[in-house]
Amino acid sequence: MILYSFFRSSAAYRVRIALNLKNLPYETVGVDILTHGGEHLSDRYKAVNPQMRVPALGLPEGDVLLQSLAIIDYLDERFPEPPLLPADPLAKARVRAVAQIIAADIHPLNNTGALRYLKHRLGHAQDELDTWSKHWIGAGFEAIERLIDPAPYAFGAAPTLADVCLVPQVANARRIAMPLDRFPRIRAVEAACLALPAFDRARPEVQPDTPATGVPVGV
Amino acid sequence: MILYSFFRSSAAYRVRIALNLKNLPYETVGVDILTHGGEHLSDRYKAVNPQMRVPALGLPEGDVLLQSLAIIDYLDERFPEPPLLPADPLAKARVRAVAQIIAADIHPLNNTGALRYLKHRLGHAQDELDTWSKHWIGAGFEAIERLIDPAPYAFGAAPTLADVCLVPQVANARRIAMPLDRFPRIRAVEAACLALPAFDRARPEVQPDTPATGVPVGV
Repeated sequence: MILYSFFRSSAAYRVRIALNLKNLPYETVGVDILTHGGEHLSDRYKAVNPQMRVPALGLPEGDVLLQSLAIIDYLDERFPEPPLLPADPLAKARVRAVAQIIAADIHPLNNTGALRYLKHRLGHAQDELDTWSKHWIGAGFEAIERLIDPAPYAFGAAPTLADVCLVPQVANARRIAMPLDRFPRIRAVEAACLALPAFDRARPEVQPDTPATGVPVGV
Repeated sequence: MILYSFFRSSAAYRVRIALNLKNLPYETVGVDILTHGGEHLSDRYKAVNPQMRVPALGLPEGDVLLQSLAIIDYLDERFPEPPLLPADPLAKARVRAVAQIIAADIHPLNNTGALRYLKHRLGHAQDELDTWSKHWIGAGFEAIERLIDPAPYAFGAAPTLADVCLVPQVANARRIAMPLDRFPRIRAVEAACLALPAFDRARPEVQPDTPATGVPVGV
């Protein structure tokens, strides 16, 4: 499989974790969404993913999947071990709710595209962007802190889709130096997950496309 | 079941459609997120949904589900007829991708919370809010227009999760008078769906909590 990825993208980070947890080998094709206007906007990449976002997953059959949560659901169905969702419908809905809080109510507001609009089209300074990001991360994390119960992962003794989404979002929060003291459960989940090679190897700092200068802050 | 809903919320609209498609009776509890600071922020509602957003679905067993897509996945598993997702994993991933483009990359940027922040904390005028909303709806719809192939619904002869998400997002676009000429496939899907009673009865204009003055514009 080919993962169209960007080292700093937290949505791509989710898929990297899922692929690693399932021991699926993949080739990384870095799509630099940050410099020179963004490779994701090229005609070449648009032919891969009409939405022009990362991640996208190229399957051996030639099909390309898009949207991180749709990709992970596909992987979980095609490669069921280890499962990323509980079997019980109610437990599954609780895991999915935490994943969606991150994927729908936090990340879209602090991703590169939204921040660039705020900066370049609406003229806001980096500190206003950071305040905006911290607001949405804080609101989502307050809910998640009440919804999870680390044991040691967000929903029990094995990582689920909730952990797969949570760890990359915490990385985004740390990148803008957001204090996380009031989220002890989230921090405990992060620590438990990062002790696993599947999460550790998926970090932005250690990707094939990570620049030698490290992970940049800002847009 | 009890649906904690707000007539204008497009996320609640999705769940109303899903409940109707599956012929599941439910009671609407209106949560007014717009006036007087928002009922969703009350202690009473926080006890129902710690994330303080709509929709939430109260089950007969007493559990409360949150996040529209997690709720719809639960309903689809517990009440499988008619299915809202194809059985084939690849086809399923395509439907989920369109749903996620809307739920993650369009709607969070033009929902009431984000627009209120832009207006009240960052001082932007209604026309700047509308331009912002149209930008994100346009970008997402351009991708979706390439990904669907109405027959007459987004992915074939029966409505799926993609239609369930698309119709409410088109309603949001229409509310801010966004031109949709360049999206003929999306408009065809909308027309096919709204001819079905399940979609028609879920519209913001005809909910138990819709005010007599109609659906307001703006935040």
